[in-house]
Amino acid sequence: MIIKAEIIAIGDELLYGQIVDTNSHWISQELDKIGVKVVFRTTVGDQREYILEAFTRAEQRADIILITGGLGPTNDDLTKPLLAEYFNCPVELVPEALEDVTKFFTRRGRELTELNRLQAHLPTRCKYIRNKVGTAPGMWFEENSVAWMSMPGVPHEMEKLMVDFVLPELKRRFDLPVIYHKVIRTVGIGESWLADILKSWEENLPEHIKLAYLPSLGEVKLRLTAVGKDYDLMVDQVAEQIHNCLPLISSYIYGYDNETISEVVGRLLKNKNKTLALAESCSGGYISHLITSIAGSSAYFNGAIVPYHNAFKIAMLAVKESTLGRTGAVSEDTVIEMAKNVRKEFKADFGLSTSGIAGPAGGTIEKPVGTVWVACDYEGGTVTKKLQLSNERDINIYQTAIAALNILRNCILNGN
Amino acid sequence: MIIKAEIIAIGDELLYGQIVDTNSHWISQELDKIGVKVVFRTTVGDQREYILEAFTRAEQRADIILITGGLGPTNDDLTKPLLAEYFNCPVELVPEALEDVTKFFTRRGRELTELNRLQAHLPTRCKYIRNKVGTAPGMWFEENSVAWMSMPGVPHEMEKLMVDFVLPELKRRFDLPVIYHKVIRTVGIGESWLADILKSWEENLPEHIKLAYLPSLGEVKLRLTAVGKDYDLMVDQVAEQIHNCLPLISSYIYGYDNETISEVVGRLLKNKNKTLALAESCSGGYISHLITSIAGSSAYFNGAIVPYHNAFKIAMLAVKESTLGRTGAVSEDTVIEMAKNVRKEFKADFGLSTSGIAGPAGGTIEKPVGTVWVACDYEGGTVTKKLQLSNERDINIYQTAIAALNILRNCILNGN
Repeated sequence: MIIKAEIIAIGDELLYGQIVDTNSHWISQELDKIGVKVVFRTTVGDQREYILEAFTRAEQRADIILITGGLGPTNDDLTKPLLAEYFNCPVELVPEALEDVTKFFTRRGRELTELNRLQAHLPTRCKYIRNKVGTAPGMWFEENSVAWMSMPGVPHEMEKLMVDFVLPELKRRFDLPVIYHKVIRTVGIGESWLADILKSWEENLPEHIKLAYLPSLGEVKLRLTAVGKDYDLMVDQVAEQIHNCLPLISSYIYGYDNETISEVVGRLLKNKNKTLALAESCSGGYISHLITSIAGSSAYFNGAIVPYHNAFKIAMLAVKESTLGRTGAVSEDTVIEMAKNVRKEFKADFGLSTSGIAGPAGGTIEKPVGTVWVACDYEGGTVTKKLQLSNERDINIYQTAIAALNILRNCILNGN
Repeated sequence: MIIKAEIIAIGDELLYGQIVDTNSHWISQELDKIGVKVVFRTTVGDQREYILEAFTRAEQRADIILITGGLGPTNDDLTKPLLAEYFNCPVELVPEALEDVTKFFTRRGRELTELNRLQAHLPTRCKYIRNKVGTAPGMWFEENSVAWMSMPGVPHEMEKLMVDFVLPELKRRFDLPVIYHKVIRTVGIGESWLADILKSWEENLPEHIKLAYLPSLGEVKLRLTAVGKDYDLMVDQVAEQIHNCLPLISSYIYGYDNETISEVVGRLLKNKNKTLALAESCSGGYISHLITSIAGSSAYFNGAIVPYHNAFKIAMLAVKESTLGRTGAVSEDTVIEMAKNVRKEFKADFGLSTSGIAGPAGGTIEKPVGTVWVACDYEGGTVTKKLQLSNERDINIYQTAIAALNILRNCILNGN
C-alpha cells in the first residue's frame, strides 16, 4: 500500500512572494527518500476558512499531513488554535513545554513574556514534541489513522524536528515501500526526439518502473522510478533497463543523478590529468564561472580569456586580422584560431572557444541573433560546431555554455 | 473588491522534490505588484483525479487561476487533456499554433515530429496564446467569470507569457486597486544595522505606506509599498519619504527597483564613455558573466582574464614573481598589480581585479577560506579592499563579485 502525504505551508508572506517556501521542497525530498508519496502541497495564508479547508481536504487524501508555519506567538498565527478547533479540543498549559521555553530564554539571558508563556499552551489531543532550537513547539496528532505534525516555519527548526522526530516516527509507524530513483542526464537532443527514440523501450518497461521526462534549458533529464520492497533488486532492475536503452541514446548521455555537465567535465579532466583553457567571446565568462564554481577546479583549469572586442582577439589570442576580415568574428575559422591559441597561451591540453551573436542586437541576415560557433582544440584535432539558438541573450549564453561543455566532454572522452 | 488568485503547479517532479518550484514564488510576487491577492497555492502531481480536484477547488475560491506545468508533448503531461475534460470540450488543431511550432523548429533546422504536431492541438474553449520561446502553447480560458491561464513549467517560458500577455490582460480585465512599489537597493550594510538607522523614519511613515526589508546575499532591498487610488499621488508621497531617508543611508544605495549592480555599473560606464577590463582570480569569470549578461555591454566592456594559476598571473598579467613570492597571490599588492596590468593590456579606463580563497580547501591560519582582496585601478588612483567572507565557495564567489562591482561603482562616480 502506498503511504500518501500532504504538505501544508501556512503564511501570508509565502503567498505574497516575500519569502520563498523552501520548506515544502525540502520535506518533499526527505519523504521521497523514505518511500512516502507526496500527493499534494498546499500553501495557504493566515486565514481561518482557508486553513480549515486545507485541513479537511488533506485528511481526505493523505495518511500523513505535515504542516509548517503559523506557530508564532502573535495573533496572526492561527495554526495552533485552528488545530484545536479542528480536533475539537481545548488548549491547555503543558508544563514540560513551559519548562523548555523558559530554559530557552534563560539560556539567552532573557525574560519570558506573557506571549512566550502562551507558546506552551497546546491542544489537549496533541503529543508535545520538543523544538530544541526555537520556542514554537512541535505538535503530533493521530486521528482517524491519519498522522499530523505541526512544525514552525523557520527552516532550521523544522528540519531539526523532521530529522530528530518525524522521519524516524514515520518509518516506525508505517509500512513504507522502498522507492528508488535514477536520473539519466542528456544534452543535445529535445524531449520529443528522445521520446520518439525511446518509444518502444518505454512501452516495455515493467509496471513498477516509471519514466518521466524532465526538460530544462539545454538538457533533458530522464527519471526512472521503481517502487517495490527490495531496494537492491530495484537497483538491479533499473540498471538493467538503463543498459537496454543505452544503445539508443548513449551519445546524448553526459551523466547521472545530480551531476552537472561542468562537474562531469571536471571529473573527466581530473581523472585523465588534463588541463583546460577557455577563450570566451559570446559566452562572456559564463563557462569559466561554471568550471570554477566547482571545488578543486584549480587542479585542471588553467584560465580563461574573454576578448570582448576583435582588437583583443588579435592582441591577446593571436587571431589573424585577415581571418576576422575574411570571415568575421562569428565564424568557424575564428573560433578555431581562438581555441588553438588559448590552448597554447595557457599551456593546456584542451582549448575551448565560443563566438556568437548573443543579442538582442547585432544580428544580420546571414548571421542572425543566436548564431554561435564553438571550437575545441586538443591533441586529437579540432572539433567545431555551429549553433542556431534563440533571440534571448541569457538563453543564448546559457545554451552556448552547455553545448560547448558537451563538445569538450566528447573530446576528452575521445582523447588518450 | 479584492481580486483573488490561485496558483496551481503541476508535476510529479515538484512533489518528489527533484525540482524546486520557483514559478509559484515568481508569480506570487508579480501578482502582488499589481494588487491581485493570492489566496492559495497548490502543487499537484501528474494524476488525473488530483488535478481535477485542484481545478474544482480553485474555481470555488478564486477569480484568477494560473496553472504551470504538465504541458509537454509526452503521455505523462496531463494538463491539456484535463482542461479539455474539465471544460467539457474537444481538443482540435489550431492552425496558428501549428504554424508557430513549425516555425520554431524550422528556425532551428529541425523536423517536426508527430508529438510536436500534437502540441498544436488545443481545447476548443481556450484562446491560443503564443509562446515565443518554446513549443508548449499558452491557453487562456474564461468560464463563469473566472480567468484561467495554463502555461509551461519551464520558468523562462512561463515568465515571458506572464509579462507579455497575462499581467497586462489581468490589469485590463479586473478592477485592481492601485499599488505602487518602490525598491531601494543597498549594498555593504546588514539588515539590522539598516533597521537601526531607519527606526524613527520608519515609525513616522504614513499608514498607507509600508516598509519591508528584503535581505539577500550581499545586499538588502528596502521595499516601500503604497496602496490607494491615485497613482501619481502615491508616487509623489513615496518619493517624499525616500527623500527623507536619503541623508541617513545614501552611501549604501546603489540603485532602485529592478536595476542590478552590474546594470548600474554598465549605465555609469556608458554615460561617462568609459571602458572596463577584469582580472578575475577567485571570482573565476563570474563578474565577467554578470557584466556581459547585459545587452549592449560590448560598448563599455573590453574583456577579462581569468588567471587561475600564479604562472598565468605572471605570464598574462605581468604580476611580479617577487610580489607573489613576498605576499602571496591573495594580497593587496597582487590585486593592485593585476588591476593595473589588466587595465593596460585591455587599454581600459578601469581595471578591476579579485584574488582570494574561495574554498572549501586552501585556507591557512593567516588567510582562512573566505579571505579576498579586490582592487580597482583608474585615473583617480587605485582603491583596494579586503573582504572576510564565508566558508561556502558559491557564496564567496557571489559576494566577491557584488563587493567588487560596488567598489568599481564608487570609483566611476569619483572619476571625471
